[in-house]
Amino acid sequence: MSEHYRDPKLKIFALNSNLFLAEKIARAVGVKLGKSSVAQFSDGEIKINIEESIRGSHVYVIQSTSAPVNDHLMELLIMIDALKRASAATINVVIPYFGYARQDRKARSREPITSKLIANMLTIAGASRLVTLDLHAAQIQGFFDIPVDHLMGAPLIANYFLDHDLIGENVVIVSPDHGGVTRARKLAEILKSPIAIIDKRRPCANVAEVMNIIGNVTEKTCILIDDMIDTAGTVTLAADALKQAGAKAIYASCTHPVLSGLALDRIKKSVISKMVVTDSIYLPSEKRIAKIEEISVGELIGEALIRIHENRSLSVLFENHS
Amino acid sequence: MSEHYRDPKLKIFALNSNLFLAEKIARAVGVKLGKSSVAQFSDGEIKINIEESIRGSHVYVIQSTSAPVNDHLMELLIMIDALKRASAATINVVIPYFGYARQDRKARSREPITSKLIANMLTIAGASRLVTLDLHAAQIQGFFDIPVDHLMGAPLIANYFLDHDLIGENVVIVSPDHGGVTRARKLAEILKSPIAIIDKRRPCANVAEVMNIIGNVTEKTCILIDDMIDTAGTVTLAADALKQAGAKAIYASCTHPVLSGLALDRIKKSVISKMVVTDSIYLPSEKRIAKIEEISVGELIGEALIRIHENRSLSVLFENHS
Amino acid sequence: MSEHYRDPKLKIFALNSNLFLAEKIARAVGVKLGKSSVAQFSDGEIKINIEESIRGSHVYVIQSTSAPVNDHLMELLIMIDALKRASAATINVVIPYFGYARQDRKARSREPITSKLIANMLTIAGASRLVTLDLHAAQIQGFFDIPVDHLMGAPLIANYFLDHDLIGENVVIVSPDHGGVTRARKLAEILKSPIAIIDKRRPCANVAEVMNIIGNVTEKTCILIDDMIDTAGTVTLAADALKQAGAKAIYASCTHPVLSGLALDRIKKSVISKMVVTDSIYLPSEKRIAKIEEISVGELIGEALIRIHENRSLSVLFENHS
Amino acid sequence: MSEHYRDPKLKIFALNSNLFLAEKIARAVGVKLGKSSVAQFSDGEIKINIEESIRGSHVYVIQSTSAPVNDHLMELLIMIDALKRASAATINVVIPYFGYARQDRKARSREPITSKLIANMLTIAGASRLVTLDLHAAQIQGFFDIPVDHLMGAPLIANYFLDHDLIGENVVIVSPDHGGVTRARKLAEILKSPIAIIDKRRPCANVAEVMNIIGNVTEKTCILIDDMIDTAGTVTLAADALKQAGAKAIYASCTHPVLSGLALDRIKKSVISKMVVTDSIYLPSEKRIAKIEEISVGELIGEALIRIHENRSLSVLFENHS
Amino acid sequence: MSEHYRDPKLKIFALNSNLFLAEKIARAVGVKLGKSSVAQFSDGEIKINIEESIRGSHVYVIQSTSAPVNDHLMELLIMIDALKRASAATINVVIPYFGYARQDRKARSREPITSKLIANMLTIAGASRLVTLDLHAAQIQGFFDIPVDHLMGAPLIANYFLDHDLIGENVVIVSPDHGGVTRARKLAEILKSPIAIIDKRRPCANVAEVMNIIGNVTEKTCILIDDMIDTAGTVTLAADALKQAGAKAIYASCTHPVLSGLALDRIKKSVISKMVVTDSIYLPSEKRIAKIEEISVGELIGEALIRIHENRSLSVLFENHS
Amino acid sequence: MSEHYRDPKLKIFALNSNLFLAEKIARAVGVKLGKSSVAQFSDGEIKINIEESIRGSHVYVIQSTSAPVNDHLMELLIMIDALKRASAATINVVIPYFGYARQDRKARSREPITSKLIANMLTIAGASRLVTLDLHAAQIQGFFDIPVDHLMGAPLIANYFLDHDLIGENVVIVSPDHGGVTRARKLAEILKSPIAIIDKRRPCANVAEVMNIIGNVTEKTCILIDDMIDTAGTVTLAADALKQAGAKAIYASCTHPVLSGLALDRIKKSVISKMVVTDSIYLPSEKRIAKIEEISVGELIGEALIRIHENRSLSVLFENHS
Repeated sequence: MSEHYRDPKLKIFALNSNLFLAEKIARAVGVKLGKSSVAQFSDGEIKINIEESIRGSHVYVIQSTSAPVNDHLMELLIMIDALKRASAATINVVIPYFGYARQDRKARSREPITSKLIANMLTIAGASRLVTLDLHAAQIQGFFDIPVDHLMGAPLIANYFLDHDLIGENVVIVSPDHGGVTRARKLAEILKSPIAIIDKRRPCANVAEVMNIIGNVTEKTCILIDDMIDTAGTVTLAADALKQAGAKAIYASCTHPVLSGLALDRIKKSVISKMVVTDSIYLPSEKRIAKIEEISVGELIGEALIRIHENRSLSVLFENHS
Repeated sequence: MSEHYRDPKLKIFALNSNLFLAEKIARAVGVKLGKSSVAQFSDGEIKINIEESIRGSHVYVIQSTSAPVNDHLMELLIMIDALKRASAATINVVIPYFGYARQDRKARSREPITSKLIANMLTIAGASRLVTLDLHAAQIQGFFDIPVDHLMGAPLIANYFLDHDLIGENVVIVSPDHGGVTRARKLAEILKSPIAIIDKRRPCANVAEVMNIIGNVTEKTCILIDDMIDTAGTVTLAADALKQAGAKAIYASCTHPVLSGLALDRIKKSVISKMVVTDSIYLPSEKRIAKIEEISVGELIGEALIRIHENRSLSVLFENHS
Repeated sequence: MSEHYRDPKLKIFALNSNLFLAEKIARAVGVKLGKSSVAQFSDGEIKINIEESIRGSHVYVIQSTSAPVNDHLMELLIMIDALKRASAATINVVIPYFGYARQDRKARSREPITSKLIANMLTIAGASRLVTLDLHAAQIQGFFDIPVDHLMGAPLIANYFLDHDLIGENVVIVSPDHGGVTRARKLAEILKSPIAIIDKRRPCANVAEVMNIIGNVTEKTCILIDDMIDTAGTVTLAADALKQAGAKAIYASCTHPVLSGLALDRIKKSVISKMVVTDSIYLPSEKRIAKIEEISVGELIGEALIRIHENRSLSVLFENHS
Repeated sequence: MSEHYRDPKLKIFALNSNLFLAEKIARAVGVKLGKSSVAQFSDGEIKINIEESIRGSHVYVIQSTSAPVNDHLMELLIMIDALKRASAATINVVIPYFGYARQDRKARSREPITSKLIANMLTIAGASRLVTLDLHAAQIQGFFDIPVDHLMGAPLIANYFLDHDLIGENVVIVSPDHGGVTRARKLAEILKSPIAIIDKRRPCANVAEVMNIIGNVTEKTCILIDDMIDTAGTVTLAADALKQAGAKAIYASCTHPVLSGLALDRIKKSVISKMVVTDSIYLPSEKRIAKIEEISVGELIGEALIRIHENRSLSVLFENHS
Repeated sequence: MSEHYRDPKLKIFALNSNLFLAEKIARAVGVKLGKSSVAQFSDGEIKINIEESIRGSHVYVIQSTSAPVNDHLMELLIMIDALKRASAATINVVIPYFGYARQDRKARSREPITSKLIANMLTIAGASRLVTLDLHAAQIQGFFDIPVDHLMGAPLIANYFLDHDLIGENVVIVSPDHGGVTRARKLAEILKSPIAIIDKRRPCANVAEVMNIIGNVTEKTCILIDDMIDTAGTVTLAADALKQAGAKAIYASCTHPVLSGLALDRIKKSVISKMVVTDSIYLPSEKRIAKIEEISVGELIGEALIRIHENRSLSVLFENHS
Repeated sequence: MSEHYRDPKLKIFALNSNLFLAEKIARAVGVKLGKSSVAQFSDGEIKINIEESIRGSHVYVIQSTSAPVNDHLMELLIMIDALKRASAATINVVIPYFGYARQDRKARSREPITSKLIANMLTIAGASRLVTLDLHAAQIQGFFDIPVDHLMGAPLIANYFLDHDLIGENVVIVSPDHGGVTRARKLAEILKSPIAIIDKRRPCANVAEVMNIIGNVTEKTCILIDDMIDTAGTVTLAADALKQAGAKAIYASCTHPVLSGLALDRIKKSVISKMVVTDSIYLPSEKRIAKIEEISVGELIGEALIRIHENRSLSVLFENHS
């Protein structure tokens, strides 16, 4: 790994969630990852060991709060505490996948707003800044009073489809639910394609939910787009519905491949031909199936960290350059 | 006005934004509004006068932060400061229309998140609780760490259409933009109707945006639904598009009738036959045109305040009982 | 405008209250004002647009919280929020005229202390420092826990009278009320003149207040001095009283020309021959009458900003060099 | 001591500064002082012993921060900490004399604002409320964000002079400096007397300061009024000047008899015939000289505590009932 | 379960760490556990469901932060967030075993102080009070600014030995390390026995550590006492050393049976005849071996909760009544 | 004094507790002490005068909170407030002896945790960092959320004994109480000596406490070690017990020579031949008796300040280099 970045005050540390991506980010910046280890005692308590001085450094800590989310979150919080007490100049938390993001409002009585709780905990622990990617809801930025640099994976994902010539009126960008239409519209803008929505509804009581499609998909190549795919239930049912409605081919895409529970099975068995995801969440080898295409956000994040460190604008990173 | 509520510790004060609604809320609770006056000095500074002791009381302050939003907001903040210093036991801020709610995320570089700023200011001033109605984004609840009781106007608005027999498959609930599909789906659920979406898009560069409709509206009665209608540009253009697409009749509906700028003109001239709104924002007589139907949230809020004061659950208020 | 200041990290932004003064300050520092715009949506909500990157910059925001005070205050708070989220290194708030300063204590039951509320709001929004001028009460500095650089207009105002040879025993500095005697004494010190006080009192119940004069003003040139002149009621009545008591000529002076309500009429009709003010508050052309003499604090503030930015002492700015 | 107050949740504790006044307050309320002791270890560290349970109680702690001010302040802070950790429901700090109040603003470069520091420390320690008397500057109320009940000694002091028939035009109320004219005017209002001001000034360089008198005192009985008398230098020089100007008799008065350094000597030797003070600061027997007349604020504070505890308005306490 | 406690405002909720103990506490108080469920989504995120209204209630949440510590901690934090937003009057966190307590200071460079981090997180989440048992270091109380009720297990553990007549000079209480001597001395006081210390030291470089015994244990019954036993390495080596030194019989005892890693194996194979522990940490059946004697702290905690709720002193709970 | 340190941004100020040590620290760093004075007004209030600009400087304030502890603590807090308001870049508080450290937990009902209170006060006043030495309990580090650099005096004290060849098996390191065994073990490690413990216990009720010795001291040179010696009661009784048990010679040692009350008398009359202390607390000439050997921590602290200022690791300072 070349190690050419000129300012030794910029240090990047990786925790345990996604060492693979952290290495790519460090390479993109041009530094070696800081020396540290994070382990667990036999009773499960986390043990942090920072093996080089970080006094006065601007530290970037890379950690997705993917599963096991509570362990990864506590690793991050304890690391922040250690860095604060060890006199880091700034503690920049880089969370490519921000877990618990779906708990972002009280939808029913007595629900927590766990995303806000986490924002408060990161702040009280000592974080100076958050760098993150495709938050489930953009409003989560407002859960923080520290600066948040919110990167977007859409241009990278769009590039995949542009490279495969999946553009124009023969392609339909499909939102798998009511809340994701704006996201579908954004991708559609880049690909110059129309959109459709899966309108899951229960026609009358005691009748099963149906996957109604609003918009025309017949003979079209459909691209289902979401911010994250978790159990893959919604997306695979949506794909079925699109197929039945006469879609020619079906792609799926998301920034964050959570892929928990039955997800892999469902995807394998589904009519989806390709699922395009990013490496914001580490995929172990058993999840690296042929249908899944992984795009790296390592260079995007690396470029962002350099610009943050050098006080240069990030605006340019939000554009699609294909 | 009957004045029968038993606990003198519950006090309701109204500021200047919506005295009309405040009176209705007080009547629903069964108390007189607290004696106070809010005026401006000749240089525009706000002058608050609380004319009865509120030591140890549980005070509810009613204020929509509608236009002039900055004056209304400062009235509220100064009132909270005065109540705090005058030893109120709790200060419960009731904001039927929460202004600046659209500034709830950084959509572009260097944007403020004004909603969060306001949440922070209400909290630092001394608010103990927020009671509000149909926030632009539900995530704004998470901008607060004090309890937020978030009421919903949808059941009241649905009642209007149920009462007018606008239900079932001949009615289509239409979201005027990509972000409001979930809201349209909720109303559609009560009315047992399908949905459609207005998909504003620019077909190619240098060509005007077109109001594309996704979903079938031909020969249907359309109900355009939004949380607020401000300049009425989007909703009236959407209505035009629906008309051209063969809609039989067009209603519009929103919780918060902001109605600024050219709104009234546009509504008058539009193909919308009726616009159903609530009294969360006070409509002066010049805005009370025939097309606008006002539903009161006074009893809903009044019932909520009683339940909050008596530590009884609010869940029952979220249901539609028609 | 020459633009010679060497450190690009120092940026000055102006909001809407006093662009004229902001330009002078920027010129004194040797920079161009930062590119930004502040406008209102049609519903009155403020819309901020910062059109250049300020990452890592030391930003100075110029805004007097003069009328319309609530709009100007909210502009400032929203700007601070935007700058904080855009990663400014420090946010230095320059408020030449600090509005709501008269609400600085509870004089009667259930009054707010709005100045403190504003101090808390500026701080929670993210201000790093306050630079201000002639606070109504010096104790307002203590409402802040961020550093406050409190500049004084007295030496500049004194210069006017020194230049016009209004000094010595033939001049009397008059405090128009009981609370301003210390301020009068300070000006008197520079001009080497005696002082007098207007003692407004009600001789007995049911009798009109009289403007009693304590001190000798017969055949003297009187200079009435205050920190601000708002409706000009007190100062013009005081001038009348001085005239009746045999004063030869009457000047008035203040740092902050609020001049609301009937102020201009009263001044025009009054026996005051000249009123010396600063440009801490912008005077529109209709307020620029012949009797009013405006002195600029632009260079004073500009010099202060340079010294703050370069970590040099401000003490020298508190001295009179005439 | 009768012990008749009905609510055992109200508890009053005294620290070491003014046990005498604390006893009077407790008697006025109708309770016994709570059992506690405050001592010092041999190295000077303070040792607090609260000898009865205060779980869930509304505790009032009486402590003037008079000399030795740092010890008295730390006693109070440590007591608050102990009460907070012992689960007091509310901690109401009663500071009849609020020390360090003259350090309430930055008058020169690099000065602290110690009053604000103390406000912050009381708050962080856990105080829920401040009850105090005649603050040096009313703005100090704004240094707190907890409720402050600010009592006034003026009506009690006025009663003394009313009882001795020192009223009307033959009496002049004299402010010993420029900052105290408002205070003098308030007393003058009750006594229906005119005012005068001692205008200490240096006529020209290298010449001693002279005590100039503004206002007419010849053949009048003068009452010098201040909030506190510390070394008594100013007040005794002022008395001399009044005498020389033909005053018939000279009284002095203040709420807080600090009386440090040479104060007693100066008062004894002065032309002041009587000095009226309150018991906000404990006077040891050597300071109880014939010239000093002590008025108790015990009943005033006691009545205030009852009203605070019972959530009744304090307004009535601010009136003069003589 | 009888359900006789009179105040319905007291509610107890159990999370997943120790339902067994929670039931005992609820029974001791005389209430049913509140209805709630805590589960995990398939991606590991925690899902809280509070199934009854808790508005205005004083809620006690029982959760030991034992393994899996991060999951248990996050359950607790999310529950606190939910309770706060659901308007609980107070949120009393009951943590019988406080995990991460050994990370209570920086022993080496760049270590976190995780216990303090957790204190800050509990507080920011919204906890009003902590009830806990035998903290690893009593100073952890000072990590909190909310009230901490710190219960002691020593009297209960002492009772076991008193009941088995293990008292007096034939018994030696042994501290297994240098830091636990005070704890050993406390138990020794109750049992009226002498103490000894295991002094683990390395006689010279490159030589294995030896378990040196300071104090006389020959022909004595030894009781090794610690606050927690984790991997049981230290305590079983200590037992060996005592045996070799001629001890007659060896007991071990601790409040918190962490028992991770090889602990059970080591205990089974050790010369320890009996290990007395409490139920602060739930022991699954595989850990309930014959050598381990479990004493319940359920009644102690239950009695504490009643006293806290009724504002009665807890002092009586700190005494040994055998 | 040579004054060679290159960065003028590093400034050291001394308050009144230990000017002697401050001078040594400044000399070690290579700077002159900053110009300031701290005095008391005649009523005991502290008056701070900082006589040079510190805008943008990294200020280190040296103050032990030794007796008179409350005065020294208030000096420090007021100085921090002044520095904060005068725009210091960072305020690094250097407290060689941290007073009130023994009040670090609630040992009995209704006790304060004064150390935490002080931590909170230093933080709220504006301290950026604490540098301290041999805290009574290492957990006090966790009372702070600002970085704490905790230096150790043990290596310096060990050097004394190494220099005097007091090492190996003929020397016994003795802890004077149960809580100090770990400290004794650390010194023993460096000197390669065994340890013993003074076990103060009451054999049965109504019998005087006896100083029981655990471990073998016959014919050994004993070194009693503690973090501080206050009234010297415990250490001198321990020395007596060691003598009676056959010790050959007895040394005592501590980092912080509090030496209050009867301490000097007891030491003079005791069997202790030498007491080794540091200059963390200033010893006036009457305490500089022949038996007391003072070692300076000036160079240790000076070296630490340079490393902190230059962002270099402090780890090397924790090692013994003899």
